[in-house]
Amino acid sequence: MSFKTTATISSFGGKLLKLTHTSSTLSCDMALNLYLPPRPNPPPRRSQSGLTCTGDNGAEKGFFQKRASEKGIAVVYPDTSPRGLTISGQDESYDFGTGAGFYINATRAPWSNNYKMESYITTELPTHLFSSFPTLDRSRQSITGHSMGGHGALTLYLKNPGLYKSVSAFAPIANPVNCPWGQKAFAGYLGEEKEEWKKHDASELLKGWKGKGEGKGFETLIDVGTGDNFYKQGQLLPENFVAAAKESGHEKGVVVRYQDGYDHSYFFISTFSADHVDHAAKYLFA
Amino acid sequence: MSFKTTATISSFGGKLLKLTHTSSTLSCDMALNLYLPPRPNPPPRRSQSGLTCTGDNGAEKGFFQKRASEKGIAVVYPDTSPRGLTISGQDESYDFGTGAGFYINATRAPWSNNYKMESYITTELPTHLFSSFPTLDRSRQSITGHSMGGHGALTLYLKNPGLYKSVSAFAPIANPVNCPWGQKAFAGYLGEEKEEWKKHDASELLKGWKGKGEGKGFETLIDVGTGDNFYKQGQLLPENFVAAAKESGHEKGVVVRYQDGYDHSYFFISTFSADHVDHAAKYLFA
Repeated sequence: MSFKTTATISSFGGKLLKLTHTSSTLSCDMALNLYLPPRPNPPPRRSQSGLTCTGDNGAEKGFFQKRASEKGIAVVYPDTSPRGLTISGQDESYDFGTGAGFYINATRAPWSNNYKMESYITTELPTHLFSSFPTLDRSRQSITGHSMGGHGALTLYLKNPGLYKSVSAFAPIANPVNCPWGQKAFAGYLGEEKEEWKKHDASELLKGWKGKGEGKGFETLIDVGTGDNFYKQGQLLPENFVAAAKESGHEKGVVVRYQDGYDHSYFFISTFSADHVDHAAKYLFA
Repeated sequence: MSFKTTATISSFGGKLLKLTHTSSTLSCDMALNLYLPPRPNPPPRRSQSGLTCTGDNGAEKGFFQKRASEKGIAVVYPDTSPRGLTISGQDESYDFGTGAGFYINATRAPWSNNYKMESYITTELPTHLFSSFPTLDRSRQSITGHSMGGHGALTLYLKNPGLYKSVSAFAPIANPVNCPWGQKAFAGYLGEEKEEWKKHDASELLKGWKGKGEGKGFETLIDVGTGDNFYKQGQLLPENFVAAAKESGHEKGVVVRYQDGYDHSYFFISTFSADHVDHAAKYLFA
């Protein structure tokens, strides 16, 4: 067993496991939460947190467990960046470094040794999870996330056709090459070459996406609050994602809901989390 | 308006207001959360936090808003003690002073000037709320709480016949005169006279309760997790409450559910919070 279980907490008839393990990809110790519903052989679903968050935020405040328990879906709540490192500059701002890994593999020093959240999320973590928890069904995975985690969910789905059965997002950073958060992160982790940035941008990736065959719709559920200050400041840009879907003929199935008055917080997520579990269930149990 | 609204957050179709006001009872500034569901004229329901908590814990992690929205019930999440004072010893331990007001009026110096959470919760706070939010229906209030807040809910219901339409509790300190938490708090706030303590003990109060007429059942819903370490350590003593109900002929209607494996945390509360909203709704809308 590559994980250490630090707590087993009952929640909605299932168990929330607080896990730690040593990541060889990130070269540090990582913590995560795993919710196992009461039903056997649950398909796992990855729920990624946003900037500054850890795997605790979703588990405590996102309220995914209730519907996941009802549907028989396991939920993995990973962390948002490597932890416990001593890289100069890692803690200078909330939107870069610690808590802000952006689910990419950094290519630029000093980040490239550890900041490989893309490999961690798509490869190392599931390998360990499926090995350590054999009741999880490795043939059925879905992905979702909030804000930076929504960017991660959309891009990892787009980059890895067939890996995930479905994708959804809450207030995702949908076009990072065109917003301050994304520009800062990509410049820091990847350097100044903007063509490189596009490989990690949901709107850019969607234009060239052939995952379900040429011209097929991109089926996703995206919720954005109209009272979300980051949306208003142009950090999220869901309209650009919709435009990219139209431009590339993938708009069929793209559902973007603008939720009146909702903000960027977990009060927004918890209000709509059941809908996102239902979205995943539709594909996981298809 | 005696409240300052520091944030208005959309949640499950309603609004969560973060409020501050100056309490004349406690002689300090206090914060609380008020959830207003989408329906007009909601009856308010008070949800009290446990030791070390504030009014944020229930609002963020208790997950009362979903069912409260569906039922059309407002929820008040008050704080657990006076705040911002400089009383010597107030911050020495987690179970006395700041965060641990025990919902009684202290009679012993130096606490008696400020630690009057019983008057604050039953009198000052509702007076301000009904004055500032006239859509709240003052004729219909219910009360619930967790741990120390469950003690508060049960005792304030028992002490004030007719004030609340219903009461329920999560892992309440049900017999504080016989547990370390209660003995420490009552000795500190009330002095060493044990007959005084009994006036603030749910099990003792129940023995003499005539709220609904001699020999009438005490209708309540109490959930306790069998994996709750504080339950195992004898801090909660729900069995003593049941015994007191039987001794006094009030056992009809006392529903105590021992939830297998659940702990003392908000994962326990959120799993069963909808049941407690339903319990309140049954009486609020009777």
